[in-house]
Amino acid sequence: MRIEIWSDVKCPWCFVGKRRFEKALADFPHREDVEVTWKSYQLDPTLPEHYDGTEEQYLSERKGIAPEQLRQMWQHLSQQAEGEGLAFDFDRIVVGNSFTAHRFLHLAKAAGRGDAAKEAIMSAHFEQGLDTSDVDVLASLGTGIGLDEAEIRETVAGDRFADDVRRDTQEARTLGVQGVPFFVVDRKYGISGAQPVEVFRQALDTAWQEAHPLVSLTPSADGPACGPEGC
Amino acid sequence: MRIEIWSDVKCPWCFVGKRRFEKALADFPHREDVEVTWKSYQLDPTLPEHYDGTEEQYLSERKGIAPEQLRQMWQHLSQQAEGEGLAFDFDRIVVGNSFTAHRFLHLAKAAGRGDAAKEAIMSAHFEQGLDTSDVDVLASLGTGIGLDEAEIRETVAGDRFADDVRRDTQEARTLGVQGVPFFVVDRKYGISGAQPVEVFRQALDTAWQEAHPLVSLTPSADGPACGPEGC
Repeated sequence: MRIEIWSDVKCPWCFVGKRRFEKALADFPHREDVEVTWKSYQLDPTLPEHYDGTEEQYLSERKGIAPEQLRQMWQHLSQQAEGEGLAFDFDRIVVGNSFTAHRFLHLAKAAGRGDAAKEAIMSAHFEQGLDTSDVDVLASLGTGIGLDEAEIRETVAGDRFADDVRRDTQEARTLGVQGVPFFVVDRKYGISGAQPVEVFRQALDTAWQEAHPLVSLTPSADGPACGPEGC
Repeated sequence: MRIEIWSDVKCPWCFVGKRRFEKALADFPHREDVEVTWKSYQLDPTLPEHYDGTEEQYLSERKGIAPEQLRQMWQHLSQQAEGEGLAFDFDRIVVGNSFTAHRFLHLAKAAGRGDAAKEAIMSAHFEQGLDTSDVDVLASLGTGIGLDEAEIRETVAGDRFADDVRRDTQEARTLGVQGVPFFVVDRKYGISGAQPVEVFRQALDTAWQEAHPLVSLTPSADGPACGPEGC
């Protein structure tokens, strides 16, 4: 079973959703047969590489969210994150375009470290106040999960994997993704948002069962049985 | 090998099917490696806790089964049950919702007494004319198989294991179960209804063989051999 997850490095619900999905998957009997792939999505591709201001300024100035509403939103998000063992620190967030971070994620994916990189970069952004566009930060995160430092620096400096990021974004559009996180199972089922663990688990069960219907072991017809209409 | 059996306390074919399945399993060479789990299913979740009428009234009034047809059905069922050593007494059956009985079965399952409880409660319902929603009946059945009386009473009074009953029901829907008994092997094979012993035995063999294909002991290719098409 192939699960593709569109998400942005700068999307708080994506981090919360990652945890919830992981919990559901850990409890799924066929987890060994599930292949998870992270796909790029940019909430705001118009951002400069480095935005001159805080997350609060960015969201109020560019997105028109009132400071009071923002604080309420963050409080709710922090609580939800805390429930998943995450310690968000919105006041230290470094605002900027996530394109370079996504190229870095594709480098990691090519090396089979996609999930570890996703985890490291989201923690860096939401918990540690690190600049995930910065080549030194990415070199440090990448070497921490076994990537080659020279390759990271070369990738960040050039435009390697830019096409992969664009292709993911285009695919999201094709699939009708309008927000992230967005989970796609076997290019057949969509699960939108950071759903509760139970919902992810139910979705996994349903998708698996649809793909693997029970094989009848009885030669011809059913044996005598009882149903809602009688026996 | 994991076998899950969806069934309702109030389903006569489920009791007959239990006996037939047990006979097939007793004769199965790998029976020590088979784990049987009883799962909850409700034929009629809309029934009140206690229905004011006999089984005959219930089936004719609510299910529209004509009395004559009902007598024929019961005669056939009684004969089949007798063939499995069961003495059904349809005239003494206590009609009511099986939800509490299913919660009791989950309590027993948690204590490792799922099968004994299933046996006791079906006998109580079909052979002894007992009310399997009644706390005193359940306390008596439960202590008879080694459960703690205080825990039974506490469970019946509250709503413990209600989620387990609902989860089983939801799983049945996901698997496409439309009647019971329904046997699922390794979440891969389905066997519907109270099949003859031979059919269960054949299904066990097939499922085992599928899960344990012969291992080739020859290092590379096959040796020279003859088949229907020649040598």
